[in-house]
Amino acid sequence: MMNRVILLDKRPIGTPTLNDFKFIEEEKPTAKNGEILLKALFVSVDPYLRGRMSDAKSYVPPFELHKPISSGMIAEVIASENADFKVGSHVSGLLEWKEFQVSTGKGLNKVDGTKVGLSAYLGILGMTGLTAYLGLTEIGKPKEGETLVVSGAAGAVGSVVGQIGKVLGCRVVGLAGTDEKVEMLKKDFGYDEVINYKTTKDISKAIKNAAPNGVDVYFDNVGGEISDAVLANINNFARVPVCGAISLYNDTEIAKGPRLQPIIVKNSVLMQGFIVSNYAAKFPEAIQKMATWLKDGKLAHQETIVEGFDQIPQAFLDLFEGKNKGKMIVKI
Amino acid sequence: MMNRVILLDKRPIGTPTLNDFKFIEEEKPTAKNGEILLKALFVSVDPYLRGRMSDAKSYVPPFELHKPISSGMIAEVIASENADFKVGSHVSGLLEWKEFQVSTGKGLNKVDGTKVGLSAYLGILGMTGLTAYLGLTEIGKPKEGETLVVSGAAGAVGSVVGQIGKVLGCRVVGLAGTDEKVEMLKKDFGYDEVINYKTTKDISKAIKNAAPNGVDVYFDNVGGEISDAVLANINNFARVPVCGAISLYNDTEIAKGPRLQPIIVKNSVLMQGFIVSNYAAKFPEAIQKMATWLKDGKLAHQETIVEGFDQIPQAFLDLFEGKNKGKMIVKI
Repeated sequence: MMNRVILLDKRPIGTPTLNDFKFIEEEKPTAKNGEILLKALFVSVDPYLRGRMSDAKSYVPPFELHKPISSGMIAEVIASENADFKVGSHVSGLLEWKEFQVSTGKGLNKVDGTKVGLSAYLGILGMTGLTAYLGLTEIGKPKEGETLVVSGAAGAVGSVVGQIGKVLGCRVVGLAGTDEKVEMLKKDFGYDEVINYKTTKDISKAIKNAAPNGVDVYFDNVGGEISDAVLANINNFARVPVCGAISLYNDTEIAKGPRLQPIIVKNSVLMQGFIVSNYAAKFPEAIQKMATWLKDGKLAHQETIVEGFDQIPQAFLDLFEGKNKGKMIVKI
Repeated sequence: MMNRVILLDKRPIGTPTLNDFKFIEEEKPTAKNGEILLKALFVSVDPYLRGRMSDAKSYVPPFELHKPISSGMIAEVIASENADFKVGSHVSGLLEWKEFQVSTGKGLNKVDGTKVGLSAYLGILGMTGLTAYLGLTEIGKPKEGETLVVSGAAGAVGSVVGQIGKVLGCRVVGLAGTDEKVEMLKKDFGYDEVINYKTTKDISKAIKNAAPNGVDVYFDNVGGEISDAVLANINNFARVPVCGAISLYNDTEIAKGPRLQPIIVKNSVLMQGFIVSNYAAKFPEAIQKMATWLKDGKLAHQETIVEGFDQIPQAFLDLFEGKNKGKMIVKI
């Protein structure tokens, strides 16, 4: 029996294309002593993977060329030579884009799909939910009554950030790229105001109207011109968790924009870049909090689920077109 | 007897000129009940005053047009109708650019010129010394063995930051604009390496050579291209106190440069703008620390003293040409 695998075939230049990936077939592996055999069920595709496809220095090492790509995945244990993992149980972790793979179990977490759908462990109870919660609470530190602005608001992280902002008593303003997303954020996620940045001429003015008391916390998922517009409305002592810069990831030259130092110094602004693993010590506490809010109906979660192993590369490419609402997941 | 006064006559456009200031004469005031009469001895001129000459929103309200300018000053009490202030004693505080003025004494600090020169209270034991100490320790948080880079290193703040960095056990690299300043920083202030940014072609490469382990703390006094070059060498988890942006203060259009978000997020960088008054609660502790280091010979202090009341505007303009070494002060 054969096993399909997705390799990184070329390092993308600018916006990645399907040509940068290659499907191969290899023999299906078997679990040896201490190992488990895993069948992929759900694959997470995330903007940060773009960085690993380049060979530039970054916080995660680059993917190797002509080797399998890896990302967050949920898998089922279908054979086990390891007493810690029962056949039929489910795990989450950083796994390779293969239909089947063996593992020692190291670095994998057992997950329980009976209370929430298994895919939630790739989103709201996984990396993106933790990113939202920890970036907002550890850096943004929103206080009741403050105004929180979120860019990439309909994305996997942004859609959770806004909801946590509401739980914490903030006025929450989002930026998203389609009217459908704007509606979803207002109706399903409790955003107070959402601006369609693609159809709004003067984004800075729109933010001023939506945030009449100025911006106290700006959760930045995108960088670029949207961030310029938000920072033009920033308050004294504002906090800016810098979570991602999806608008800049595919640039082939270094993008230029207004220099930030005058705004930062005039307003005593704090900007702090982060990746979720910086706060690994707080994961258990954060997951517990998120799970409680989810159970109590205080958080909704939105997934865009694409079906089929062969659709993984396209689902990844679609992130940069903003085709996802909430977490983009491929179901195998 | 007449009293000379310097007014803001025009709001500068771009780089200020002498035409933006106006000298007038008015009658010398007298101290009434509860007041003291002050004679100006030393006047501090500082880059941040440029911001107050514009009417843009900032952390300090703009100067009023056709009214006296004010800055940090040391004055002698020459007449007193207030039992708290003796004739012949000295005070520091925010005072107006006048040869003589009356005050209730509110907001003034008594200073003692017997152990250090009075002008030190405008520099190393005053606002600029506090700015250096508190920006570095509260935001930069340098650890022993780390590399600290300081721009505007020969300025009033920068020359102190580097010395504190040495006291705290850092490798200290400075950027300054003349060979004379480079020599001074190495010889008198203990900088390990200093780069002349005006004569160095590839500043980023020069920083890479001077900071082979990368930059852990960047104390940014200047903004602009120098900061781009430092940030290109920034380490994971680096801290960047953003103290000023003198290279950008006279711009008439918003300066553009490489977007910072990708660097900030890739390296989990913290950038924090501040003004010294954010840390007012820590002033007593900071002054005590600085005074001890000064007494123990661990800190040198450098002043550029210009003489004459009529030289105040020119001394201010000279800041933007980098004509000062250390604190720029006008002696009356």
